[in-house]
Amino acid sequence: MNPRIKWLRNQLIPLKLDGIIVSNPINIRYLTGLSEEGTLIIAPKENVFITDSRYIESVNHKLTIDDEIIAYDSRNLSKYDYEGFFMLDENVGFEESYLTYEKYKRYLHTYQVNLVETEGLLENQRIVKDEEEFEYTKKACEITDKAFEYIIRNIKKGMTEKEVAFEIERFMISNGADGLAFETIVASGENSSMPHAVPSDRVIQKGDIIQFDFGAKYKGYCADLSRAVFVEEVKEEYKEIYDFVLEEQKRLSNSLKDGANIKTVIKDRETEYKLKNYQVMHAFGHGVGLEIHELPILRSNQDNILKENSIIAIEPGVYFSGKFGIRIEDTFKVTKFGAEAITKCKKDYTIIKLA
Amino acid sequence: MNPRIKWLRNQLIPLKLDGIIVSNPINIRYLTGLSEEGTLIIAPKENVFITDSRYIESVNHKLTIDDEIIAYDSRNLSKYDYEGFFMLDENVGFEESYLTYEKYKRYLHTYQVNLVETEGLLENQRIVKDEEEFEYTKKACEITDKAFEYIIRNIKKGMTEKEVAFEIERFMISNGADGLAFETIVASGENSSMPHAVPSDRVIQKGDIIQFDFGAKYKGYCADLSRAVFVEEVKEEYKEIYDFVLEEQKRLSNSLKDGANIKTVIKDRETEYKLKNYQVMHAFGHGVGLEIHELPILRSNQDNILKENSIIAIEPGVYFSGKFGIRIEDTFKVTKFGAEAITKCKKDYTIIKLA
Repeated sequence: MNPRIKWLRNQLIPLKLDGIIVSNPINIRYLTGLSEEGTLIIAPKENVFITDSRYIESVNHKLTIDDEIIAYDSRNLSKYDYEGFFMLDENVGFEESYLTYEKYKRYLHTYQVNLVETEGLLENQRIVKDEEEFEYTKKACEITDKAFEYIIRNIKKGMTEKEVAFEIERFMISNGADGLAFETIVASGENSSMPHAVPSDRVIQKGDIIQFDFGAKYKGYCADLSRAVFVEEVKEEYKEIYDFVLEEQKRLSNSLKDGANIKTVIKDRETEYKLKNYQVMHAFGHGVGLEIHELPILRSNQDNILKENSIIAIEPGVYFSGKFGIRIEDTFKVTKFGAEAITKCKKDYTIIKLA
Repeated sequence: MNPRIKWLRNQLIPLKLDGIIVSNPINIRYLTGLSEEGTLIIAPKENVFITDSRYIESVNHKLTIDDEIIAYDSRNLSKYDYEGFFMLDENVGFEESYLTYEKYKRYLHTYQVNLVETEGLLENQRIVKDEEEFEYTKKACEITDKAFEYIIRNIKKGMTEKEVAFEIERFMISNGADGLAFETIVASGENSSMPHAVPSDRVIQKGDIIQFDFGAKYKGYCADLSRAVFVEEVKEEYKEIYDFVLEEQKRLSNSLKDGANIKTVIKDRETEYKLKNYQVMHAFGHGVGLEIHELPILRSNQDNILKENSIIAIEPGVYFSGKFGIRIEDTFKVTKFGAEAITKCKKDYTIIKLA
């Protein structure tokens, strides 16, 4: 049997579950490798993937006999087939943070079971990455690094944020990315004060900070990188903030090691921000994997222990509303001694010339 | 007050609702124009948008006094503020097809109200488009048409499906699209037999069918276009299927007019497929708007009446597993006399030469 499905079946025993219905496509991909639409049912007697006529051919191409997963076209399943996966009123897990209220009610009706919340069972398992997941992430990070090195040498006079963002995305796709980890952020001048700015038609100008935030996806795994660069010159007030943010990222990566309590680490950083009178505008980071935002969340309300071989983005930032902002972010692997950067592109002051 | 919010407040009266909590970002964008993350609360005394520190600045930029929407940073709201939006146990609508089971439970706790299902109230309202929505869709369709005309003249020997897909996307973005309506499909040769194929590294070859399915997004509004083209030559067996599919699309666009019952129209097409012994692999179409798949759904189980000024994609297709498939799709506006195509690029046999 597919080893991740085997793991999942073993989890059901202490949870006193007779089965589990997996609906979140990311969790289905994690467990089976399938990216086709459908529902994965781990039932007492069998593992079943219910898809439809659009996908059944490609699903059957991908599944091997070793997976021990039977694929069905939903068209060929009757009401009784659905009711037959489980016994009446068996306890069956479901993903309460993915399933809509409407589908929850429909599942109750379709499967005639007692649906039980599973409290992030799969999301928590996905935190620690295996060797293959690490290799894919590394590849995504390499492409992302190269895109940064490329873009800082290729911003031309008159280019808008949108055009710069598109160049980054084009570079990543034509250099092996199978997609974008998320929508690219290119925020220049006063736009950099908004952590989640959308690229606009603003033309890049002398004296600007350009805040980048982007990442490639490789075999489904995401990279996450932010850099702030300076156009033609660096103002002194920018340097001070840049140095602070970079120093904060170093402190975080030293503290975020196997066994560290996230709450304690982040509380310390928040104290430092308060001393400087800077606002904390967003989390200091997050897990990265098949999704760009995964567990763990690096916030002071997270009383959780960090684990070796987790992959996390660490992204301190400081923002001055309507003026400017600076954020530095890398993708890291958690080790016994701290967090080791997987993205590796330069982070001393970068001053670009408009060609 | 913003007219769409005014409309929504009027809907609450016959539904005996004291308010509604809107969580689906697409519905929030439809009602307010905001694309920032947050929750829209239509309460007896006020309209409120709760966002967070990442977005509050840009939200306040966009809202005008005429909107009559107050924006809050969630950080500044206490437990009592949340409970104060409604009276204890008031009936408040929620989006059961968007909200997860987990958030449903959290809302109950946070707002201390009786949550009532709203059965697609907003999704149904979004079916009929206004003049501005139609203009945006038209622009998205124009960009999409141009991308098709461009790509059929620019496929070179040795190009893979992935490279062709990327060229289409590059063209749309650099010709005014603000994004893609969905991930581009380029499926060549036997891959065309899978309606939802993902572009692969397969090289385009003489004798192939290339099945395209793509669309631009403009000001949030989607276009949807599918074409099947032939490489260097057209096999006779392909022509027969192509003619059938094109004829089916014509029949559908003639029948899908204001007042038509979707069920009746689609049942007729299914009968035709059965006579020819072709399988119906997917719906014959769907609404198009802020989302690529909206209401109405063009399936025989939809006992619904079509309305003037709806925008729909009509997409009959015929597929032979492991061999080939042909689908023709355009974006249409529903009128009193039938459906009028908004995408307009050619659909007689297109034979491309590999330059």
